[in-house]
Amino acid sequence: MNKQPKKGGKRPQQKRQQQNFEYARRLNGKKVKIHLRNGEILEAEVTGVSNYEIIIKIDDKEILVYKHAIDYIEY
Amino acid sequence: MNKQPKKGGKRPQQKRQQQNFEYARRLNGKKVKIHLRNGEILEAEVTGVSNYEIIIKIDDKEILVYKHAIDYIEY
Amino acid sequence: MNKQPKKGGKRPQQKRQQQNFEYARRLNGKKVKIHLRNGEILEAEVTGVSNYEIIIKIDDKEILVYKHAIDYIEY
Amino acid sequence: MNKQPKKGGKRPQQKRQQQNFEYARRLNGKKVKIHLRNGEILEAEVTGVSNYEIIIKIDDKEILVYKHAIDYIEY
Amino acid sequence: MNKQPKKGGKRPQQKRQQQNFEYARRLNGKKVKIHLRNGEILEAEVTGVSNYEIIIKIDDKEILVYKHAIDYIEY
Amino acid sequence: MNKQPKKGGKRPQQKRQQQNFEYARRLNGKKVKIHLRNGEILEAEVTGVSNYEIIIKIDDKEILVYKHAIDYIEY
Repeated sequence: MNKQPKKGGKRPQQKRQQQNFEYARRLNGKKVKIHLRNGEILEAEVTGVSNYEIIIKIDDKEILVYKHAIDYIEY
Repeated sequence: MNKQPKKGGKRPQQKRQQQNFEYARRLNGKKVKIHLRNGEILEAEVTGVSNYEIIIKIDDKEILVYKHAIDYIEY
Repeated sequence: MNKQPKKGGKRPQQKRQQQNFEYARRLNGKKVKIHLRNGEILEAEVTGVSNYEIIIKIDDKEILVYKHAIDYIEY
Repeated sequence: MNKQPKKGGKRPQQKRQQQNFEYARRLNGKKVKIHLRNGEILEAEVTGVSNYEIIIKIDDKEILVYKHAIDYIEY
Repeated sequence: MNKQPKKGGKRPQQKRQQQNFEYARRLNGKKVKIHLRNGEILEAEVTGVSNYEIIIKIDDKEILVYKHAIDYIEY
Repeated sequence: MNKQPKKGGKRPQQKRQQQNFEYARRLNGKKVKIHLRNGEILEAEVTGVSNYEIIIKIDDKEILVYKHAIDYIEY
């Protein structure tokens, strides 16, 4: 996970994609521990990631978590 | 709900729409439990979703909830 | 209030306006109960709405409320 | 202060300016009571407003207040 | 510090720069008291300002402060 | 770290890059103390920085920290 997007001789199109790069997208399909701003810790599998949301699955139930409510994620 | 927007051979127009994709739009018409940053839990039907707001209906009364105030949503 | 902007065969110009659609604009002129993040509830008439602010009137006194401080609005 | 920017037959250039309209700009030079998210109330004259900041003057001392820290402003 | 950027007959290029004007940039090199959202007050010299960050120096140690964590700054 | 990006006779392309300049990118590979909004202090090595996230490594475990949850960083 510590591999950063490579720098260097990229074309403009690729450069713009790099600027929008986010690590959260890589969590899709993984088990994580999400620490929320309210103190709760959600332990679950990530089943979706969008710009502002992370979808997790706990006991066959899906939950939409807003990224703005997350302090940090262990994985 | 865990179907993510498909990746792959899309046209630019479709690509831009994907980047703005959000799961919250799919909650329209569903019964949800909204967990707010203040600790309150609003149990209600979603009747509208805009970029920054979710409209819910509780006992025939409508409420505008700001997404920034939401920690997570069960559905 | 639960009428959402219609989807479908719109022209690009209209599409862009839809994306910026927000329900808060419709509250102008109405009596509302604004629940703030600090626990306060402001009961007042909405006299103005801008991108980030809502203006309310309480006893002939005007108050500028930042949307970021609002959890939800009853109307 | 409750005069909203007029709607109607505007040219595109003016329309864009309307979308960026904010009430806080009108507070410049006025005495206000700023209610902060930390519970503090700053009573002062507004001497400057930028996109994200409000400058106030208390006893010849200037203070830069971030709008994100403001819940509401009485004026 | 209470001199605002002048209004009036500007060219488009200058106009855009005005819209991005922020007072925090002027704090560079000054001693300030930064009041954080967590209640801490950091008393220090500002040694750098970027769009979202302020760098301060306390006892030869540098600290990156996120603007979003700042309530107000005395200077 | 207190060297700011130089001002002056730059070309437009370089100017735009300056506006997006952020100090956090320079923390990559350094040991830091991250003070979170929840009061926690994470002491760790930075192994990645994206627009909204900082990746740190504690005891061979990686953690995704959202910048919005950070108050300040000592380094």
